[in-house]
Amino acid sequence: MRDVAIVGIGLTRFGERWEHGLRELMAEAGVKALTDARIESKDVEIVYGSTMASGRFAGQEHVAALLADQMGLKNVPAVRIENACASGGSALRQGYLAVAGGIHDIVVVGGVEKMTDVTTAEATTALGGAGDQEWELAQGITFPGLYALMAKRHMHEYGTTEEQLASVAVKNHENASKNKYAQFRKKITIDDVLKSRVVSDPLKVFDCSPISDGAAVVVLAPLEKARQYNDTPITIAASSQASDTLRLAEREKLTEVKAAQIAASGAYRTAKVSPKDINLAEVHDCFTIAEIMAMEDLGFFEKGKAAKAIFEGETALNSRLSVNTSGGLKGCGHPVGATGIKQAVEVVMQLRGEAGERQVSNAEVGLTHNVGGSGATAVVHIMKRSN
Amino acid sequence: MRDVAIVGIGLTRFGERWEHGLRELMAEAGVKALTDARIESKDVEIVYGSTMASGRFAGQEHVAALLADQMGLKNVPAVRIENACASGGSALRQGYLAVAGGIHDIVVVGGVEKMTDVTTAEATTALGGAGDQEWELAQGITFPGLYALMAKRHMHEYGTTEEQLASVAVKNHENASKNKYAQFRKKITIDDVLKSRVVSDPLKVFDCSPISDGAAVVVLAPLEKARQYNDTPITIAASSQASDTLRLAEREKLTEVKAAQIAASGAYRTAKVSPKDINLAEVHDCFTIAEIMAMEDLGFFEKGKAAKAIFEGETALNSRLSVNTSGGLKGCGHPVGATGIKQAVEVVMQLRGEAGERQVSNAEVGLTHNVGGSGATAVVHIMKRSN
Repeated sequence: MRDVAIVGIGLTRFGERWEHGLRELMAEAGVKALTDARIESKDVEIVYGSTMASGRFAGQEHVAALLADQMGLKNVPAVRIENACASGGSALRQGYLAVAGGIHDIVVVGGVEKMTDVTTAEATTALGGAGDQEWELAQGITFPGLYALMAKRHMHEYGTTEEQLASVAVKNHENASKNKYAQFRKKITIDDVLKSRVVSDPLKVFDCSPISDGAAVVVLAPLEKARQYNDTPITIAASSQASDTLRLAEREKLTEVKAAQIAASGAYRTAKVSPKDINLAEVHDCFTIAEIMAMEDLGFFEKGKAAKAIFEGETALNSRLSVNTSGGLKGCGHPVGATGIKQAVEVVMQLRGEAGERQVSNAEVGLTHNVGGSGATAVVHIMKRSN
Repeated sequence: MRDVAIVGIGLTRFGERWEHGLRELMAEAGVKALTDARIESKDVEIVYGSTMASGRFAGQEHVAALLADQMGLKNVPAVRIENACASGGSALRQGYLAVAGGIHDIVVVGGVEKMTDVTTAEATTALGGAGDQEWELAQGITFPGLYALMAKRHMHEYGTTEEQLASVAVKNHENASKNKYAQFRKKITIDDVLKSRVVSDPLKVFDCSPISDGAAVVVLAPLEKARQYNDTPITIAASSQASDTLRLAEREKLTEVKAAQIAASGAYRTAKVSPKDINLAEVHDCFTIAEIMAMEDLGFFEKGKAAKAIFEGETALNSRLSVNTSGGLKGCGHPVGATGIKQAVEVVMQLRGEAGERQVSNAEVGLTHNVGGSGATAVVHIMKRSN
């Protein structure tokens, strides 16, 4: 297994990008990433592209070939990866494996979603495809409902409060206010969250990540060649993935994501680090309760202790552990297929020291945590500055 | 790079499977493949699952995790691959790379599509996602129209006739009549094809592959360990993939699929064989013209000579080169995400000598050719009996 580095990153602004379609978003992020990596299109050996539901959002499948075409990559193999909201992280892992296994040298991994060309009802239905359609969604529940069940149980077992849930959104909007790529650059208060409309009790509008357009692309290379392409290559120290039942009803517990726990322990083992070594983490806060569970599943806090810690500022920017410095899914936006790649782009920016106003001062080791559905897929990556 | 073998296969009957949904089809093929490989679910390290448009056909994305769940594989990484009609071949290649690169030992690759729960109009629209939605399909053309353009040009340049096109369907129905997994087990005549309703001139209903339900699964292992699992492991001697522009209008020529030519030449080089060494081939006959172009792109016949050769029986069962012994997409059916895996299953059956009535007598080296869209993706595999 070879060491793998990220040598190029490209990101579009996330949000309601009425003026841009799927192909324009891909092209924008793709060309930025190739330029950042100082490579020419002829050097790219394979493209992994991730979208969750481009078929339902834009009528377009076969998006990896389209991404390759839009980036001017002639005739290279192109492979679309789809794992619901963990599509991006899963694609990054496939790209990592292609380089680590010695199959390819220069690999492009791009994620995109164009969600605002359909109605909110259509988007909600499409997103339901991340869960168990036949045995779960078709019975009437939607994703806010699934996460509300988890939140209710977490509140019941650990005394988690609505104010603590709200504090996740407040922190992430605060971080997003410092990120020019973010969908929401507006700070909010706990009171704003608590007074926002209930979506599925106890989750309110401001507990939920938005519907977004956007794209993110990274370029991977073997670490030994990385400095040909970039002066500050970032090493992927671990890439780990696990799955679980698609339907929530068959999980062992409602208050944790077992796939995330398995993926995390695998990642820590491979990278030879422990949770206390991580300086910053981009985690999958599709709903505020998801970030609380993530903090516990990743071993940053004991079970049942994360909500209070977040509320008390222990994961704020430049605290002990800076979490979702990009603004997370809640503040930066959640174009589903792009999210897992965007998490990696944010960690790379931080580890390079290029995060501007939201720069983490001690950024040495970063982690990404990308979850699909209500936890049927989880992907964890650990990244470090290369020596 | 390690040598890779197929040690287990599983297939459902293709057709209108009203009594089975997506999950039942997956489970049926998956359990057959694990049983055939004599492995327990705990031995499986990763699952690749392919569907093209399960979101639009069945409301279900995230199908690889569902496949893993349905097969009783607990918490293994699961990755959905989508490359339009080449989803199966692309997933097989990712599985191959995972074993070849030394990442994983036992890998499951499964493809499925459940297409008959929507109307034919909805299916046609969903399949349009394989082409360029914005610049091509949204302008009014459908896939039969795209392939009809290629057929017209082939007729113009090489004198290909409607009778020659029809002869592809006749041969493939003849083969399908001997295959218990096939959707159509009824022989047809050239006259039946010519008199069938025009879909997009010159293509008639019997020039087109059908809408189908079905699933296919293979189990991969390193060749050095393959005999632990199967007495007749089949070696994947080459796995090669290429892409091209999504839209037909930007291709260099309408009468060939450049991605297939590139993938094929890569495969021959890796496997150290030439077209004359191939005894049987499963090729992507989504339309009759596609099989004619495939024969030329794969180097079996000179450009412009394949149509006459097929008409004269040179690719019939147990001729010099047996093509689409399963019945191909036309006769066996085309559940899109399953097709590329089914091609591999058929070649394995033939190389094992288990193809019954349709057994190719000299089956030593087989090839699969899986195309996405109108040729934006092509994947070629070459397989041999293991020594």
